[in-house]
Amino acid sequence: MTLVYEGKAKYVFSTDENEVYRIQYKDEVTAGNGAKKDIIKGKGRLNNLITSKFFEKLAESGVNSHFISRLSETEQLVRKVDIIPLEVVVRNQAAGSILNRLGLTKGQPFETPLVEFYYKSDELNDPLITEDHIKLLHIADDLEIQILKEQALTINNILIELMNKMNLLLVDFKIEFGRDHNGIILLADEISPDTCRIWDKTTHENFDKDVYRENTGSLIQTYTAFYNKLEAL
Amino acid sequence: MTLVYEGKAKYVFSTDENEVYRIQYKDEVTAGNGAKKDIIKGKGRLNNLITSKFFEKLAESGVNSHFISRLSETEQLVRKVDIIPLEVVVRNQAAGSILNRLGLTKGQPFETPLVEFYYKSDELNDPLITEDHIKLLHIADDLEIQILKEQALTINNILIELMNKMNLLLVDFKIEFGRDHNGIILLADEISPDTCRIWDKTTHENFDKDVYRENTGSLIQTYTAFYNKLEAL
Repeated sequence: MTLVYEGKAKYVFSTDENEVYRIQYKDEVTAGNGAKKDIIKGKGRLNNLITSKFFEKLAESGVNSHFISRLSETEQLVRKVDIIPLEVVVRNQAAGSILNRLGLTKGQPFETPLVEFYYKSDELNDPLITEDHIKLLHIADDLEIQILKEQALTINNILIELMNKMNLLLVDFKIEFGRDHNGIILLADEISPDTCRIWDKTTHENFDKDVYRENTGSLIQTYTAFYNKLEAL
Repeated sequence: MTLVYEGKAKYVFSTDENEVYRIQYKDEVTAGNGAKKDIIKGKGRLNNLITSKFFEKLAESGVNSHFISRLSETEQLVRKVDIIPLEVVVRNQAAGSILNRLGLTKGQPFETPLVEFYYKSDELNDPLITEDHIKLLHIADDLEIQILKEQALTINNILIELMNKMNLLLVDFKIEFGRDHNGIILLADEISPDTCRIWDKTTHENFDKDVYRENTGSLIQTYTAFYNKLEAL
């Protein structure tokens, strides 16, 4: 039961079983690479419930992840992976950091979904990097980069369909991948309103962390509303 | 003889002849996207002489550019092209902006040359962009991006060989391309100590604009020394 890793939003513990970790979701919420920081009671529970549900739905559609099972309100069991230090971002419409980078208009839809890679490094402020940078830094090789992109786009399609049934738009999301002990790449980390940008189809109301980033609503109420929609599927 | 374009370092004029422009190099020098700015008499002349020489050498090695001929100490005739709004950067060793972006050590050599694209936009501060961004913004299509990368690497090989004969290292450089009236992609803009990072092989002394950026020497003396080496080839 050793603490293996402490991230901004979760603890990762070893278990009695080889190759199995226990993840405990925290109530900490941060934005702007830690510039804004709070403890919001109940947030860890909601993200654990939502992530578990998403990973189950993805498995039903044939996308494997590190997820084994939900253990409690705030914990899940996962397969042990070494996280690849990339934030893989998929964007269907322009929002967030890309607006200022490329001078785009919020909500502008993309002809095809855009996949971007950011280098997971708090020190460097998670910079956007290119595929050639990824190879230069020996983070992943050509084939693995193609696998990451294809997986990200497949996951995007599945999530879009789920959101559609909830009358929601999937604007963008961030996922992470890891390698298991055989070097197999698996979806890892979490999928939750912390890591997605989700809008109501009609009103464009946020169902995601932007309510916290932009102080436009209650995080718990927003995440609970989203979880209820997801549970009703 | 209408002024078609005024950049930071040159004027572009139309001529009597269709599809031919006259470029006049300016004595203005800027750094940090215009944050540092000076007029240094003689700088335009040196960059015109050096760029003309480089474009002649590249043509001898089979790389076409917009360059037709040198007209005077500060002017050249070029084929009219529409500039593709990309700064194509080739890096052989780590220096400049990539140090802070990826956390690298100055002078660290790369296993293979790295090609990067920056979106030419003063407003957006010339951001690094990915190939998918280039397609999203309709700046170039897949085939054109491959042509730009291959041309950039070919030019890198030719320039490295030239520098080698001068006992110099080509650390990195920035080039721009344009499309002629047939849509053919041609190397354009300039190749000079303004747009290259060049070190003495032994002492790592700069033969480029870093002497101006970092206030470590006389720009005119440095560029003259470089031009003399290039002329002696």
